Amino acid sequence: MSNEKLPDSSNLDQWKQAALKSAPKTSTDPAKWLEGVKWVTPEGLEVKPLYTKKDLENLEFSDTLPGFPPYVRGPQATMYAVRPWTIRQYAGFSTAEASNAFYRKVLSTGGQGVSVAFDLATHRGYDSDNPRVVGDVGKAGVAIDSVEDMKILFNEIPLGKISVSMTMNGAVLPILAGYIIAAEEQGVEQKDLNGTIQNDILKEFMVRNTYIYPPAPSMRIVGDIFRYTAKNMPRFNSISISGYHISEAGASQALELAFTLADGIEYVKTGIASGMDVDDFAGRLSFFWATGINFYLEIAKMRAARLLWHRIMTNFGAKKEKSKMLRTHTQTSGWSLTEQDPYNNVIRTTIEALSAVFGGTQSLHTNSFDEAIALPSDTSSRIARNTQVIIQEETHICSVVDPWAGSYLMETLTQQMGDKAWSIIEEVQSMGGMVKAIESGWAKMQVESCAAETQALIDSGKKVIVGVNKYRLPKEDLVDILEVDNNAVRISQVARLEKIRATRDAKAVQEALDALTAVAEDPSKGNLLDMTIKAVRLRASVGEVSDALEKVFGRYRATNQTISGVYGAIVETQESWKAIQADIKKFEEAHGRRPRLMVAKLGQDGHDRGSKVVATALADLGFDIDVGPMFQTPEEAARLAIENDVHAIGCSSLAAGHKTLVPQLVEALKQQGSDDIIVVVGGVIPPQDYEAVFAAGAKAVFGPGTRIEDAAKKVLEEINKAFPAK
Amino acid sequence: MSNEKLPDSSNLDQWKQAALKSAPKTSTDPAKWLEGVKWVTPEGLEVKPLYTKKDLENLEFSDTLPGFPPYVRGPQATMYAVRPWTIRQYAGFSTAEASNAFYRKVLSTGGQGVSVAFDLATHRGYDSDNPRVVGDVGKAGVAIDSVEDMKILFNEIPLGKISVSMTMNGAVLPILAGYIIAAEEQGVEQKDLNGTIQNDILKEFMVRNTYIYPPAPSMRIVGDIFRYTAKNMPRFNSISISGYHISEAGASQALELAFTLADGIEYVKTGIASGMDVDDFAGRLSFFWATGINFYLEIAKMRAARLLWHRIMTNFGAKKEKSKMLRTHTQTSGWSLTEQDPYNNVIRTTIEALSAVFGGTQSLHTNSFDEAIALPSDTSSRIARNTQVIIQEETHICSVVDPWAGSYLMETLTQQMGDKAWSIIEEVQSMGGMVKAIESGWAKMQVESCAAETQALIDSGKKVIVGVNKYRLPKEDLVDILEVDNNAVRISQVARLEKIRATRDAKAVQEALDALTAVAEDPSKGNLLDMTIKAVRLRASVGEVSDALEKVFGRYRATNQTISGVYGAIVETQESWKAIQADIKKFEEAHGRRPRLMVAKLGQDGHDRGSKVVATALADLGFDIDVGPMFQTPEEAARLAIENDVHAIGCSSLAAGHKTLVPQLVEALKQQGSDDIIVVVGGVIPPQDYEAVFAAGAKAVFGPGTRIEDAAKKVLEEINKAFPAK
Repeated sequence: MSNEKLPDSSNLDQWKQAALKSAPKTSTDPAKWLEGVKWVTPEGLEVKPLYTKKDLENLEFSDTLPGFPPYVRGPQATMYAVRPWTIRQYAGFSTAEASNAFYRKVLSTGGQGVSVAFDLATHRGYDSDNPRVVGDVGKAGVAIDSVEDMKILFNEIPLGKISVSMTMNGAVLPILAGYIIAAEEQGVEQKDLNGTIQNDILKEFMVRNTYIYPPAPSMRIVGDIFRYTAKNMPRFNSISISGYHISEAGASQALELAFTLADGIEYVKTGIASGMDVDDFAGRLSFFWATGINFYLEIAKMRAARLLWHRIMTNFGAKKEKSKMLRTHTQTSGWSLTEQDPYNNVIRTTIEALSAVFGGTQSLHTNSFDEAIALPSDTSSRIARNTQVIIQEETHICSVVDPWAGSYLMETLTQQMGDKAWSIIEEVQSMGGMVKAIESGWAKMQVESCAAETQALIDSGKKVIVGVNKYRLPKEDLVDILEVDNNAVRISQVARLEKIRATRDAKAVQEALDALTAVAEDPSKGNLLDMTIKAVRLRASVGEVSDALEKVFGRYRATNQTISGVYGAIVETQESWKAIQADIKKFEEAHGRRPRLMVAKLGQDGHDRGSKVVATALADLGFDIDVGPMFQTPEEAARLAIENDVHAIGCSSLAAGHKTLVPQLVEALKQQGSDDIIVVVGGVIPPQDYEAVFAAGAKAVFGPGTRIEDAAKKVLEEINKAFPAK
Repeated sequence: MSNEKLPDSSNLDQWKQAALKSAPKTSTDPAKWLEGVKWVTPEGLEVKPLYTKKDLENLEFSDTLPGFPPYVRGPQATMYAVRPWTIRQYAGFSTAEASNAFYRKVLSTGGQGVSVAFDLATHRGYDSDNPRVVGDVGKAGVAIDSVEDMKILFNEIPLGKISVSMTMNGAVLPILAGYIIAAEEQGVEQKDLNGTIQNDILKEFMVRNTYIYPPAPSMRIVGDIFRYTAKNMPRFNSISISGYHISEAGASQALELAFTLADGIEYVKTGIASGMDVDDFAGRLSFFWATGINFYLEIAKMRAARLLWHRIMTNFGAKKEKSKMLRTHTQTSGWSLTEQDPYNNVIRTTIEALSAVFGGTQSLHTNSFDEAIALPSDTSSRIARNTQVIIQEETHICSVVDPWAGSYLMETLTQQMGDKAWSIIEEVQSMGGMVKAIESGWAKMQVESCAAETQALIDSGKKVIVGVNKYRLPKEDLVDILEVDNNAVRISQVARLEKIRATRDAKAVQEALDALTAVAEDPSKGNLLDMTIKAVRLRASVGEVSDALEKVFGRYRATNQTISGVYGAIVETQESWKAIQADIKKFEEAHGRRPRLMVAKLGQDGHDRGSKVVATALADLGFDIDVGPMFQTPEEAARLAIENDVHAIGCSSLAAGHKTLVPQLVEALKQQGSDDIIVVVGGVIPPQDYEAVFAAGAKAVFGPGTRIEDAAKKVLEEINKAFPAK
């Protein structure tokens, strides 16, 4: 080995000189070219091509240890070297029986916990026999109406041993109570229950929309759950503060991080306001991140999250270390999955799973490759689960704690990401906190603006998605998908509800529900979860509990705001964009008004990223756009469309309700004498269903990966056909 | 932010105290338990659970820069931030026409270079009409007999622009000459040719066995190619020194690294011995690594390789920086692919591709998920290619050069891996260098010992392979595979050869071949590549050129050595192992001798890792094992088996020849009156072919992932059936 002094970061000029040699031969100013060789992330961080030791000089957490403050290197000292993260696959298959069979299979083939997806009717507090939810029962998750369904769901799954995660926010009281009673009737005490309830209502108002009541009583429910579980369920995580859905709605990593921690601040305030010491409940707060395809950013985000949460909880005066230690579940991104060439999704999910692991997650869900088309099949679920098993058992990645520690890049990026998120958190605090930022609509607009920008970058080819806007296949193969017979599920749920209503002590149930209503009216009379448990033990249904609370709290109706200009600004120079604008101009000249389209979300599906992006992009193009309220029935949507005299309804379906809801919408238009209004459908529609949707009367179907411009062109054509110039 | 002093690596005792809390409750000595929390790698490196700043203290390359010595951080200053690695997928589809169509498709959908796989007949210097290669033509790659085939292979691929990699070692002279003439007839000059020829004959003697001539004349060919290309083809890599096949044969990372660099040392010596200055040719030496599933080790290996090569070339007195800079192609591991649940291979290949990228490769081949079953299909090839495209275009991983730099773990592991490999290189040098180490059989035994150990760990469940020895599916789905009609390929190749022979100037060809033979006899008369080019331009075939050289050089016959005890030592305590040993004992008592099995490799397939591992494991069990010579015809194998009076022949097929060769073997036994000898078959046999192989008379088929014990039991049963005790 020679002893020559090797070039190092003390003189980066020599590196720059060498780097200049890579300048394209056509470059007239290589120095300027080199300055441009950097990646400006969606949140505006500048990622350089070269990081060196020099970059580490200003870290606030240099050379810290895992298991010690500020926990950048992980909440535990030994992390996966002793015990890997929990493989927890989120799933729900329409009926409690099918879901139970799936969970038991998963637990016998590498899964280590249960994670329940509920159907949309349940999320929104409706029983399966409610006429508003005919198209929603058993779609996108399991239908749960009562504790009898819960008992089937967890049949032969020992709830004292297996940890259960439940993604429930709106109907959190009857669902959590149902789980507690199902355990009780298995002989498991509350103190032994181990798992997580999502219970993160704030992000619902911002992005996912499965709320029931307005913000204030919703936050009271959160507080009552904190108090009840702190006292009775010491091993249960009383909330999972979720960035996942914020990310899925299109937020950048820094925005996801900042808004989630800011939500966390609100929940801590709620806990303190409900009379507890911060250390009484803070140790049971858990988090939930998305990991998308931006590999380095996702790792940095998860490390920075622990740094900032430690800071936040120190500021709250928490004394216990456990209160200051961020623990998280992670799920790979649904947003990054493509309907096109879906096996590419196995690749994406593997890379995203690695981010979550390098970020130090405590549990992980890996998406199935067909989730952009339908609910996961047996095969796709297995491949998804195997992604984690292979990382845990074949790669030796688990052998080392926080392997990126010390990396010039990763340490720097962690600090940058933390600083950026902190500045957003400070902005939120200056508005009065996250509840205020949500109520004003500001928070939602920040996310939607990110989403519109990303979509425009994809549609214009500036951001590549393989198989979608690059190397797209001329013809896609059909993938075997799971088909849900939504009607059969509803009929069997209704029958079970009827049986329960016929056999329970109706008077006792009514008294328990009245008592719950009384506590909703007067907090001093008791705890909402405690009262719900009593009603559920007597077989009150999810819908009945929700109604008992709604009497006092009311049902929340969101106001719609849309952003404008973000999408158009990125694509407006494209010739094809200008051509459609010209066609719209022509239409306006011929008809005296612009083509008018109503974007409709039917049923209980609250995923509105897609519909909002389409709305803003079409408005930027020149369409006259109405955005219908969330949760309409087909009849309500038809009525509103007719009242607003639109030419077209764009129906967004992401929860598999299209085969029920689209025919009903077309029928409702006909019934009301306005079948000249055309219907187009967008969202997650399996190719296998296209024929049925067209047969129902839709004029166009736009699957995931459709360029908005292409959709706009087609819609305009159809409008021109249906409303020819006189 | 608080100013408290956070715990850091200056006091690791506090981390240990915290770590002890993770000890299992049953642990009686937690301190000892914690000492055991480490990963001892196959090469004996100890990987700790925690790395800190402290670990960086003794690095020899701390804080160096990419593009600068010792090149640990990469050979170029800007690496992928300016230009990503080349996506180069290795493929050959039986005929030149089919391969050409595939390359052109790949180049239009994200592939960035061509990489040619040749069939085994070509590798071994036989024309397609040679009776020895009836089962090999068009299998596992493209059949090339003459420059006419080459011209079809590269039709409409501009050889002055597209870089071509050719995996050719044995028949390197006629193949390289054919490529040069094909380019010449496209109008492309030699100086503009850009690509790589493998030309790494040393590893063939050690692991892959596609040699033709003995080591000394083979090394002379290498030297002549170096001289010719240094003078005439300045943009062409004259060798690709390959660790890949050493890894595939079962070597640990350190062994792959050490043997490959030691091979490199021999080639540098060869170049110098042929009269060149080291700087004349060293800049065109390139390398070829495997990346397997051991994520951290693979990255460390690739970084350490650059460190050591810089050291080696400095010691050789190289002056030019380019001579000291290791550039490499990488391929994901075939070894880690499973026949079972093959979509798991998409996950593995993604992880392995990331290792190669983080290791700083210059080009990459990602394997298709079905390669443990058959040659890649269109779909599986696309997914494999997309793995790279997604990493390049969606993840932003390319934006940062050597992102692991500074990582406490990765920097330490790089140094450890380098030190370990260096000690092996020193051991090789003390034996007189790699040629000596290979000739003595020592090198091959080191690799085979690693392979047997790994197989024993897998068979005993100590090393997990998901879907094989854990979570194995009760029933596998069939995967669509590519079927090659080997007979049709042979007939068309023979017809084309006949046409060439009928239309060329026979006298001129014979004179050129005689001149080549003369140069083989007397090196002072010219350069072997130069003479081959002249013959090939006149349409001499691959087989004719090989024969012209064989007249002087002879054909190499390897001697077989086997290791013993390595496999048995790991599994000997298992009850099931002991049970088979007892059954063998019984057989011996009944027959007066042990069950005797000959392991046979038929045709030109030189992949003998599997057959050698099976041979050593069965011998450890108590079988009397013969290992037949490589490259036998079915008739030769039958004769040898009869002479040795074996009970069974175990036929190993990894190159898709089983449907031709197994029936011929059974027929040959019958012809020679010994059809009591049973035939079993192992290797890469698609489930679709099982029926045909059984119908041909095989008594058992063992696919990839078979536990050797299970195979042994079955073979013994069949032997007992065929040779009942009297």
